[in-house]
Amino acid sequence: MKRHYETLTPEGVRLFLAGYETLAVRLGGKPAQWNVREVSDGNLNLVFLVHGPDGSVCVKQSLPHVRVDPEWRMPLDRTAFEAEWLRRAERFAPGHVPEFLLFDPDMFVLVMECLDDFVTLRQALGEDADATGPSRIIAEFVTRIAFSSSLLAGRLEDVMPDMALFAHNTTLTRITFDLVLSDPFCVHPRNHWLSELDQDVMALQNDPAIARAMIRLQQRFLTCPQALLHGDLHSGSVMVRGEQVRVIDGEFSLYGPIGFDCGLYLANLVLARAAARSDERRTHLAEAMEVFWSGFSTHFLSLWQTCALRGDLLAEGTFAAFPSLLHAEREHYLNGIFQDMTGFAAAEIIRRTIGYAQVADFDHLSDTTEKAARQREALTFAGTLLRNPPLSMTEFSVRLED
Amino acid sequence: MKRHYETLTPEGVRLFLAGYETLAVRLGGKPAQWNVREVSDGNLNLVFLVHGPDGSVCVKQSLPHVRVDPEWRMPLDRTAFEAEWLRRAERFAPGHVPEFLLFDPDMFVLVMECLDDFVTLRQALGEDADATGPSRIIAEFVTRIAFSSSLLAGRLEDVMPDMALFAHNTTLTRITFDLVLSDPFCVHPRNHWLSELDQDVMALQNDPAIARAMIRLQQRFLTCPQALLHGDLHSGSVMVRGEQVRVIDGEFSLYGPIGFDCGLYLANLVLARAAARSDERRTHLAEAMEVFWSGFSTHFLSLWQTCALRGDLLAEGTFAAFPSLLHAEREHYLNGIFQDMTGFAAAEIIRRTIGYAQVADFDHLSDTTEKAARQREALTFAGTLLRNPPLSMTEFSVRLED
Repeated sequence: MKRHYETLTPEGVRLFLAGYETLAVRLGGKPAQWNVREVSDGNLNLVFLVHGPDGSVCVKQSLPHVRVDPEWRMPLDRTAFEAEWLRRAERFAPGHVPEFLLFDPDMFVLVMECLDDFVTLRQALGEDADATGPSRIIAEFVTRIAFSSSLLAGRLEDVMPDMALFAHNTTLTRITFDLVLSDPFCVHPRNHWLSELDQDVMALQNDPAIARAMIRLQQRFLTCPQALLHGDLHSGSVMVRGEQVRVIDGEFSLYGPIGFDCGLYLANLVLARAAARSDERRTHLAEAMEVFWSGFSTHFLSLWQTCALRGDLLAEGTFAAFPSLLHAEREHYLNGIFQDMTGFAAAEIIRRTIGYAQVADFDHLSDTTEKAARQREALTFAGTLLRNPPLSMTEFSVRLED
Repeated sequence: MKRHYETLTPEGVRLFLAGYETLAVRLGGKPAQWNVREVSDGNLNLVFLVHGPDGSVCVKQSLPHVRVDPEWRMPLDRTAFEAEWLRRAERFAPGHVPEFLLFDPDMFVLVMECLDDFVTLRQALGEDADATGPSRIIAEFVTRIAFSSSLLAGRLEDVMPDMALFAHNTTLTRITFDLVLSDPFCVHPRNHWLSELDQDVMALQNDPAIARAMIRLQQRFLTCPQALLHGDLHSGSVMVRGEQVRVIDGEFSLYGPIGFDCGLYLANLVLARAAARSDERRTHLAEAMEVFWSGFSTHFLSLWQTCALRGDLLAEGTFAAFPSLLHAEREHYLNGIFQDMTGFAAAEIIRRTIGYAQVADFDHLSDTTEKAARQREALTFAGTLLRNPPLSMTEFSVRLED
């Protein structure tokens, strides 16, 4: 049945779900018994959690505008890209994303597993929860999707059609390009910051070394489709409950440089550390960063040993006669990811401190002088990453302590 | 009218053209008066030239297999990609491609201007025709299409859908990846060469420095979609008549590194030089290489001054406050194209000497010892390009003379 798009109300959600037998069975009982609760709190979409006698689902719908700014019009197709991402994430990294249940292309509604009692990693980090466990899992998650979706594991006949599919996600790629990689680096009305940081922002925006780094990162972002990225892997896109971790919100997904996802995750640990309440916590968060990169790099290299798939790039194929060279080139590839990671991490730190969409990590600091000092620490570190990129995680950690 | 695909005969061509009024009018007279001549001589397709009392057309149709090897099955869609390429080439570099007249997506037939009395540049070069004039024009041609189709001139909303479109051209991208960038660098049944070159081929295929360069060029080819490429820009894809130049056969088109097109063209000048009949001719062809790069680089940089379009990358936008930095980064981008060019040129020289599809340039050398010596010269130069890449055209030219 072809439906006409309309924005869902809680009552509309009930009717929508009742129209799909598998979903109605999952919820159990009668539609009137279902509890529908709107929990939209991202910038873009409507989100409802629905509980029935037997089960629950999460319903996400695109709006024809930015949720928090109805004047900012936006095409509806972003949920379709999230659905495509989710199905691939489920295949490549099972157990680390909510179960995909349904996508309705007319209503732009994505229905998936409801993550009861999960909280965002950002919230958990703010409450001093363990950061190393989730970082280890996210490292494996990023590794698996990146490797499996890339030409390292796939032949071009399989990978290029996926590159093509996600290349159409231009609406959200534009947002990332503008909000993460452009606006914060020039005078732009969407930027805002504490007045205490005026000098820091001026210094940042007037530094040619930073401009040069960003000019190159912009090119990496748009013209280096190594693998399928989540595209917005901040700590609010990671849900945790005990030792369980689920990654959500893949609507920004695109083919891009693998270091972009790594960098966004790393940046959010840096931000959490800058906002932390104690030195012990700072140490713990720095440790989580090392756990993340160590997990990522180890796992990434080991996939070449354990993964049965072999793609067109960096595989034995043509160059089977050169095993040690191949190994060295794989490490070279990994070094490239590291370089991208630190650069994109810097951009994310900066944009989350002075750009349009800032993070809540610093909200507990009611003293603005203190808050500005913490944000300055993060900004300064980001500036260092761009001006003088670290060549290894050891160098990264040393600079973090400076 | 939906047609069912069938391979065209000369009589079928007549009926096909008679069914399109604009084409029938262009040819003039009655269909029975039209002269239909099959001139297929590429590896892949049927080509017919049709002349009527008032005009002429060229008709190209995909076959469901490689023309010269019916066992090698192949999807028909490649003519569709050629049609898409041709329409863009006509828009971005008017006057340097045959006029696009029609594409029939059911019959996979592309109809375009008939290039009467043109010969391939390869043939012209073999007959000691001027090489500098066509090289200057091809330089401008590659520049215009590369710049205009890229994110240097276009916004991601316009460019990424085109990246997506051409990412579906996997059949011919596979051929390029295998025949140009893979097979010649390992033991493969499709390779063949004069037995006098056995030692040279062994040395080439066993050199880790060459393997490393090729591992990286493979990655550049598949994961660096800078611009729309012709994808097969050898001297047989360039038609000349007097000072007129037309580029044909865009069926291999894809988004890739700009240096790939430059490298293929340059390689074919290197091959022509290695096969040349006189020292004067060798000097002239070396000069044509310099003219090509000088034309390309000058024109490419000047497009940033003269082109009204501004894209998302390397444009003033975010970084308008840094004009000299932007200029330096544009030169850095151009240096990257140069590096890609010399690498891909080496691959093309090698594959055209020891791979599946070799060039006719050496055919006039009846003495196989002499022929092998000339091919060895080309192979040796290609090896140098990969082992120790030149950093400038001056270095390139010096090594060519060594």
